[in-house]
Amino acid sequence: MKRRSFLKKAAVGLAAGTVAAPAIAQSQPTVSWRLASSFPKSLDTIFGAAEVISKRVAAATNGKFTIKVFAGGEIVPPFSVVDAVQNATVECCHTAPYYFFGKDPTFAFACAIPFGMNARQQNAWMYHGGGADLMREFLKEYNIINFPAGNTGAQMGGWFRKEIKTVNDLKGLKMRIGGTAGLPLAKLGVVPQQIPGGDIYPALEKGTIDAAEWVGPYDDMKLNLHNTARYYYYPGWHEPGTTNEFSFNKKAYDALPVDLRRTLDHAAAAVSVYGLTDYHAKNAIALERLKTEFKAKVEIIALPGPVLRDLKKIAGDVIREESEKTPMARKIHASYTKFQALVGPWDRVAEGAYHQLVEG
Amino acid sequence: MKRRSFLKKAAVGLAAGTVAAPAIAQSQPTVSWRLASSFPKSLDTIFGAAEVISKRVAAATNGKFTIKVFAGGEIVPPFSVVDAVQNATVECCHTAPYYFFGKDPTFAFACAIPFGMNARQQNAWMYHGGGADLMREFLKEYNIINFPAGNTGAQMGGWFRKEIKTVNDLKGLKMRIGGTAGLPLAKLGVVPQQIPGGDIYPALEKGTIDAAEWVGPYDDMKLNLHNTARYYYYPGWHEPGTTNEFSFNKKAYDALPVDLRRTLDHAAAAVSVYGLTDYHAKNAIALERLKTEFKAKVEIIALPGPVLRDLKKIAGDVIREESEKTPMARKIHASYTKFQALVGPWDRVAEGAYHQLVEG
Repeated sequence: MKRRSFLKKAAVGLAAGTVAAPAIAQSQPTVSWRLASSFPKSLDTIFGAAEVISKRVAAATNGKFTIKVFAGGEIVPPFSVVDAVQNATVECCHTAPYYFFGKDPTFAFACAIPFGMNARQQNAWMYHGGGADLMREFLKEYNIINFPAGNTGAQMGGWFRKEIKTVNDLKGLKMRIGGTAGLPLAKLGVVPQQIPGGDIYPALEKGTIDAAEWVGPYDDMKLNLHNTARYYYYPGWHEPGTTNEFSFNKKAYDALPVDLRRTLDHAAAAVSVYGLTDYHAKNAIALERLKTEFKAKVEIIALPGPVLRDLKKIAGDVIREESEKTPMARKIHASYTKFQALVGPWDRVAEGAYHQLVEG
Repeated sequence: MKRRSFLKKAAVGLAAGTVAAPAIAQSQPTVSWRLASSFPKSLDTIFGAAEVISKRVAAATNGKFTIKVFAGGEIVPPFSVVDAVQNATVECCHTAPYYFFGKDPTFAFACAIPFGMNARQQNAWMYHGGGADLMREFLKEYNIINFPAGNTGAQMGGWFRKEIKTVNDLKGLKMRIGGTAGLPLAKLGVVPQQIPGGDIYPALEKGTIDAAEWVGPYDDMKLNLHNTARYYYYPGWHEPGTTNEFSFNKKAYDALPVDLRRTLDHAAAAVSVYGLTDYHAKNAIALERLKTEFKAKVEIIALPGPVLRDLKKIAGDVIREESEKTPMARKIHASYTKFQALVGPWDRVAEGAYHQLVEG
C-alpha cells in the first residue's frame, strides 16, 4: 500500500481517536534464517506448521525476516535437527522434542509423557506453570531457546496387524513408537523403534515392524498406514497432547532486534492454536472416512482396560526411574507431575465433566 | 539495541547461513488505537487479555502500533462496545460476543452455545471449519472484523443460594447468566438477567438475584461470589468454551499496512492460547482453595442428571428456534451444528477417551 493511500484510508481511524505521529525513518537489516524440520513434506499438518510460521513472520515484518523451511532429511536428518541448531548449522528447527530423550530424558517433558498432560494442560504448564522457564534452563547447555509451536492433540493408540486382547499379545511385537512411550512397552516385551514419519509405511508393509503409531487418522492415512494394518486402537495413552516445538539457536535469537524476537514468539504461540485445531478438524473428517470408506478394512477399537491399567502402572514407574538419570530431569519431572496433579481435579469438573455430558 | 551491536551479535547468524541484506530506509507512520473492553479491571484474566495484546503488538512493532485499553464503563459501557466499534468511536473492543445476541442471535455462535462446542472445537470451527469466514460475512453489516482472542475453557455451572435437586427448584429463580443460556432456563421458569461482571456480587448479596454464573473458580472468587452463595455447580453446560473476541472497526483495520494487520492477527491467536491456559492454571489453584480454605462455606456439586437432560433437550429446541429469526443466524447455526456433529465422534475416541482414562 502506498503511503498516501494508507494515510487517506487511516482517516477513519484519525476521526475515531487515532493519532498519526510524524513518520520516523527506520533502518533495519533483513534477516534470513534456515529451519530444519523433523517432518516429511507430505504432512501438511505437522510439517506445515513451520511453513505457516515462516509465511506469517515474513508478512508481519514486511519481508524483513525470512525463514526458509527444509523438510526432514533435506539439509539435516530428521533426528539430528537439535544438533544442527546447537551447532548453529541452522538457526532453528521444528521437531517433537521427545525424539531426543536418549540424549537426556528431560527433552520428553516439553513434548509428551505416557499418561501425562493433554494439549491444554501441557500448554498451561509451559506458559503459566513454570514449564517453559525450566525447559529453557535445561536447553541452555544445547545453545537453544524453545517455544511450543503446534500440538497434535490426543493421538490414537496406533495400528496393529494383530488384535491386542491381553498384555501377552504385546510380547515380541516390533513397534514404531515415538518418545518415552517405548519404555513401558519394552517392559511388556515390545521392541520399540524410533523411525521417522516418512519411513513408517515401508517398514510396516515389509514386516520389519508389526505395529506403528504416528499421530491420528489424518496423518496416518497420508502415511498410508490404514492400508497395511487392520486394528486401529484408542485412546492415545502414550501421547495425550504431543507438543511440537520451534527451537532457536540462542545466540541467533538473542542477536535479533527485540521486535523480531517478539514477532517470533507470537507466531509460535499462534501456530499452537492453528496447529491443534487444524489437526482437530482434519482428524474428524479422516475418522469419518475410516468408518465409512474403509469400513471393511479397518477396525477402530479401544485397548482393553486391563492392558491400559498395566501400562499406566508401569509407565509411572519407568518415567520416574528415567528421570533419576540427571538432576535436571528429576527437577522437571517433579514440576510436571505436581502440575498434572494440580490441574487434574479441575479438569474433572470442567473439561472432563463436559466431555462426559455431551459424549457419555 | 544499537545497529552496530545488532550486527555484531548477528555474526553467529551470518556464520550459520544468515544473509544480511543492505539496510532499507523505511518510513511508516505510528498508529494509536483505543480498545474498549466489556470487562472490569479487577479480572486480570479476561480483562488482562486486552492488555496482553496491547503490550505484545507494541513490542512486535517497535512501538509503532499502540493500543490503549479501557475497562468496561471507562469510555464505553460494557454492553455497548460493539456499537462503539461499529460507529468508529473506538477502533476495537474486547468482549464476549454473546452479550449481543439480542441484536441478532448470530453473535452467540462466535462465543458460546449451551451444550455446544468446547474451546478446541470452537477454535477448530472458527479457523478450519469456515466459522470465521461466516462470522465475518455477518459482521460486515456492523463494520466489524473479528478474531477469537482468549477463551475461558469449560466454565462452572454457577452459584446458587439454594440447592437444585429437580427442575422445580429452578422455578422463579432470578439468575445472572450470559448469552443464550438464559433462553432454555427461562423455559424452566428462571428469570435470566444479563449483568456486567463487576455488578454481579452486589446484586447477589442484596438478593436482587438468587443465582449467578460468571466463569470459573478464579474469576468468581475475584468477584467474591463464594462469599454470598453456598452451592457451586458443575459442569458448565451453558458455556463449554466461551470464546472472547477482538473486534476491529473494518475500515480502521483495512487502513492498516499489511504488516500491522498480520501482527494483530497473530497477537489475537497467541492470546487465544495464553488466555485459555492462564485460566486453566489459575482455576486449578482456585478450585483447590475452595476445597480447603472455604470447605465449610462452599459445596462443589454436580447438577443432577435429570436437570441436565431436560436442559439439553430444551436448549437444542430453543437455539434452533432462535436461529430461525434471521437468514444469517440460520446459515451459521447449520454450519455450527454440522461441525459439532463432525468432531463429536473424533473427540469420543481422542480427548474425551483420554479424559476418561486418566480421570474416570
